[in-house]
Amino acid sequence: MAALSRDTTGVYAIAPTPFDESGAIDFDSLSRLIDFYGSAGVTGLTLLGQMGEAPKLSHDESVCIVQYVIKRTDLPIVVGVSAPGYAAMRALTADVMSAGACGVMIAPPNTLRTDDQIVSYYEGASAAIGEDVPFVIQDYPLSFSVVMSPSVIARIAGVAPGCVMLKHEDWPGLEKISTLRRLQADGAMPRLSILCGNGGLFLDFETERGADGAMTGYCVPELLVDVVRLTAAGDREAAHDLFDAHLPLLRYEQQPGVGLAVRKYVMKRRGILASDIQRMPGAALSARARGEVDYLLTRLARKDSRVVVTA
Amino acid sequence: MAALSRDTTGVYAIAPTPFDESGAIDFDSLSRLIDFYGSAGVTGLTLLGQMGEAPKLSHDESVCIVQYVIKRTDLPIVVGVSAPGYAAMRALTADVMSAGACGVMIAPPNTLRTDDQIVSYYEGASAAIGEDVPFVIQDYPLSFSVVMSPSVIARIAGVAPGCVMLKHEDWPGLEKISTLRRLQADGAMPRLSILCGNGGLFLDFETERGADGAMTGYCVPELLVDVVRLTAAGDREAAHDLFDAHLPLLRYEQQPGVGLAVRKYVMKRRGILASDIQRMPGAALSARARGEVDYLLTRLARKDSRVVVTA
Amino acid sequence: MAALSRDTTGVYAIAPTPFDESGAIDFDSLSRLIDFYGSAGVTGLTLLGQMGEAPKLSHDESVCIVQYVIKRTDLPIVVGVSAPGYAAMRALTADVMSAGACGVMIAPPNTLRTDDQIVSYYEGASAAIGEDVPFVIQDYPLSFSVVMSPSVIARIAGVAPGCVMLKHEDWPGLEKISTLRRLQADGAMPRLSILCGNGGLFLDFETERGADGAMTGYCVPELLVDVVRLTAAGDREAAHDLFDAHLPLLRYEQQPGVGLAVRKYVMKRRGILASDIQRMPGAALSARARGEVDYLLTRLARKDSRVVVTA
Amino acid sequence: MAALSRDTTGVYAIAPTPFDESGAIDFDSLSRLIDFYGSAGVTGLTLLGQMGEAPKLSHDESVCIVQYVIKRTDLPIVVGVSAPGYAAMRALTADVMSAGACGVMIAPPNTLRTDDQIVSYYEGASAAIGEDVPFVIQDYPLSFSVVMSPSVIARIAGVAPGCVMLKHEDWPGLEKISTLRRLQADGAMPRLSILCGNGGLFLDFETERGADGAMTGYCVPELLVDVVRLTAAGDREAAHDLFDAHLPLLRYEQQPGVGLAVRKYVMKRRGILASDIQRMPGAALSARARGEVDYLLTRLARKDSRVVVTA
Repeated sequence: MAALSRDTTGVYAIAPTPFDESGAIDFDSLSRLIDFYGSAGVTGLTLLGQMGEAPKLSHDESVCIVQYVIKRTDLPIVVGVSAPGYAAMRALTADVMSAGACGVMIAPPNTLRTDDQIVSYYEGASAAIGEDVPFVIQDYPLSFSVVMSPSVIARIAGVAPGCVMLKHEDWPGLEKISTLRRLQADGAMPRLSILCGNGGLFLDFETERGADGAMTGYCVPELLVDVVRLTAAGDREAAHDLFDAHLPLLRYEQQPGVGLAVRKYVMKRRGILASDIQRMPGAALSARARGEVDYLLTRLARKDSRVVVTA
Repeated sequence: MAALSRDTTGVYAIAPTPFDESGAIDFDSLSRLIDFYGSAGVTGLTLLGQMGEAPKLSHDESVCIVQYVIKRTDLPIVVGVSAPGYAAMRALTADVMSAGACGVMIAPPNTLRTDDQIVSYYEGASAAIGEDVPFVIQDYPLSFSVVMSPSVIARIAGVAPGCVMLKHEDWPGLEKISTLRRLQADGAMPRLSILCGNGGLFLDFETERGADGAMTGYCVPELLVDVVRLTAAGDREAAHDLFDAHLPLLRYEQQPGVGLAVRKYVMKRRGILASDIQRMPGAALSARARGEVDYLLTRLARKDSRVVVTA
Repeated sequence: MAALSRDTTGVYAIAPTPFDESGAIDFDSLSRLIDFYGSAGVTGLTLLGQMGEAPKLSHDESVCIVQYVIKRTDLPIVVGVSAPGYAAMRALTADVMSAGACGVMIAPPNTLRTDDQIVSYYEGASAAIGEDVPFVIQDYPLSFSVVMSPSVIARIAGVAPGCVMLKHEDWPGLEKISTLRRLQADGAMPRLSILCGNGGLFLDFETERGADGAMTGYCVPELLVDVVRLTAAGDREAAHDLFDAHLPLLRYEQQPGVGLAVRKYVMKRRGILASDIQRMPGAALSARARGEVDYLLTRLARKDSRVVVTA
Repeated sequence: MAALSRDTTGVYAIAPTPFDESGAIDFDSLSRLIDFYGSAGVTGLTLLGQMGEAPKLSHDESVCIVQYVIKRTDLPIVVGVSAPGYAAMRALTADVMSAGACGVMIAPPNTLRTDDQIVSYYEGASAAIGEDVPFVIQDYPLSFSVVMSPSVIARIAGVAPGCVMLKHEDWPGLEKISTLRRLQADGAMPRLSILCGNGGLFLDFETERGADGAMTGYCVPELLVDVVRLTAAGDREAAHDLFDAHLPLLRYEQQPGVGLAVRKYVMKRRGILASDIQRMPGAALSARARGEVDYLLTRLARKDSRVVVTA
């Protein structure tokens, strides 16, 4: 499997974790999901993030999912290992790296406030998991209430050799990408691969600003792959035209708290997941909301023929 | 002037406050802005909200702006009077109501947490400003960190006779509208006019859910007026088509911290404001960001011929 | 072992987890600690709370500590089982209850805001762990950013049959105790045992207000036992005299972030723990701070002869 | 009047604002309060802080209070000018400095997160009020949710020439004082006067760590004056003995939300204020709480004969 590196580009899809009605992991759906991502052209997969319902899984379940996925695909796998303490983070990292993951992703605990606190936390995490393990900083202030300035990211990149990638989902975040690329050009920080999250809500401009791609879970990952490819090819108008066609649904999916329910529902409509159920505590779509998503899918299907939903 | 009521429908535009390069209020631009809103077909105006840079204005400036606007237009005027204490709130309310405002808007201080705290705060505010003054609850958790459940809004509506309108900008918020309308249908709360904020990001569905319109500051208010009108007329496809055409720009404008800069920049490009400057501390767009907005405007102009920008 | 009940009184000591210099669990110190608590006259022990460095322990380590303690003492044992999701909470609860714990303690995740969200969370948690498992609500807004009004606690007690105890560490909290006892007297909620935390900083008055005792980790638990006993015996002056003698040290220990370091250091000085080290990320006392604690101990020893420190 | 400087030492009392039962400013009580502070031996006064109910006063009332106090005393006066925007801050600063204040105090808005944001805010504030106006940074994370590391304070002191004093009320904060004094000794920052807040809860050790005194509102300011004087004189035991005698009351007063009610109640019992009423929204003590304060006063009076209360 390819290692995660500072030069990684493309789309890492944040995979949901399929459950059946009893709350058990649904490996049949997981199998279809892996095949689907492969055919959609993604570069890699990210497992056990917030949208993978990681906090609702036991350690053993988490390792089991990672092993299952790695056996079934050649796509490189990043695994979320965020934990309240370094002990659990270290244990999960050891297990998934030996299972064949290409790297791990670490979100900051929401108690961090000052620049020094944030840098120290990642320095400690890097020491805990091992400095040779490639890791991704998850920069998502809306969800974690931790705000990292570009200089903090530069400092982490400077002190933690394993830090090779930024999952960028600050909001607003376009200037942050430009600033990070400028710091790198000035020699003030090593290069990081920057993959963008936030459901892709600004991917059209993020790629133009210097991001290397996306790491997010939009229910039509084909769109993410296309936008990254078209922008890299310099086909700006085509990238925006396609992006704009998806924006109404993408925006609907990006609602906090509801997003995963929309994502799983669409993947069920697309025939990938058998059920859109979440483990407790989780959100479910009302009949009204499902109707709205259906309406958005119908409208989208007119512009993107790949979006076909089952009856 | 029409009073603000539980049955108000339409679009109240959140007006920015124009400044000149020295930081002084630019009354010429304000005059053009008022004319523009009138020709755009809005129902009313909301002055001195967050996006009106209210916290950067002195009391005297605030009153002066309200008086100036009321003299120049017949549109009903709502004024933001949020303040850290009831004394300043009461003073500003008295001044603007006697100047001819039709109501005031009150945001919760970000120290409130429990249901009881929130209800008590609004009960006290209502007593402070006078129970005969119509007021708007501003429900904007992303900005104020105060989360109001539907039952809390129902309780406020029950204890504060002046409470006639909800500025709805929770996120996600579609189910909240449905729940509030159900509570009202069940007799569990009096009717409130619900006007939606969040830049209009979900206006296409909010109106379908039972909202009465919009109270927000999107830089092309014509779009807000049209969506409310088309939905009321039952022309769903036309409403969504127009909405979707604006969504790329609307989404760009809705970035926290940057939104007002985008809004003022577009209004400058449209020839309404002489300058897009904000009072300190404020945000300014980078050259790169201005280019992105220009690009979005160019693309939008192909679909909505009203969006013509000056050179 | 006695079951945890609505009528529990006395002192549950929050036990720290002893580590050696390598970061391994130090079972010799744990053994001494258990003996010490027994001789100090505490009613029970609480393991794996925040101050037990629970988030830094793996699931297996957590279970191992609980089993070890239960084998060595007849004191009833409460175990902290707070977790980001119900799955891990359920798994840990099952393991520790079958090992012989008398109940579990659950802190709210810091994303909860509204009354309904808090009640729903505890209702779900109760269902997840099993309605027959006695549990303790941990009400600690300073640490968790979740504010529970008395009516919310009453609602939880009403819907979750296993809810028998409140670990009360709101701040300010005296009126809350009075309000809860009034709600109970009025029949608006079932009785809960109320044990107070916050290091004991207000225990002198909390017991007078109707609290049943303490659940906290002050490094001289003998003081907590005495204050509860003296207040119950109606010896107000003696209770306050002793409390006041300890207050300078107690206040020093109650500093957030530093408290556990002070606690472990004093327990090392008292010959109970071999080391005061914490697992990473953890705090350590500076030489200056150790000197301050030594000074406070010296002054305290003049008033309470039980506080003897080893050289 | 003495200017506020980097070398200021002693006690600045945070003065409450007296109101009568109608909510009007009670100038008779204010007059007695000024005399009382003079006789208590304080070095200066701080008006219009949080505990002076500043947010509940209009601009005109604020200026009026400052003018009244300055006319009646030769004590140097610091005025809280924190405001949501620079415009109001600038206006109030101009008015109070021309009335004769010796400096102003500025708290950070609670939206600030990163080091750069905090430094920029103070840099902008300094420019707004004028670089020749001496100002105090209020570092109070518990209340403002803004955490300033020592290096941030050093940066502010470096870029804002008017920054001469730190109101230190971080918690824990002892190491912070040591670190700031070390940075200063190393030439990494200019000297700041450090006066401590938090009701004085750690004043016994703060002065030993290098603080220059206190700026807080404990209802027996004589204690603050004595502790600063005794520590400066090297009489450690006497300082701690007196401090410890006051600690039970001081701790009770330091409860958030309740503190001002306790403070005003004691000042009423001491014959200084005619009423302990606060402007709305404010807290009031229950009969039970008043009884607890009375009990603490009675116990304290046995150890400090200056604490005599009127019947």
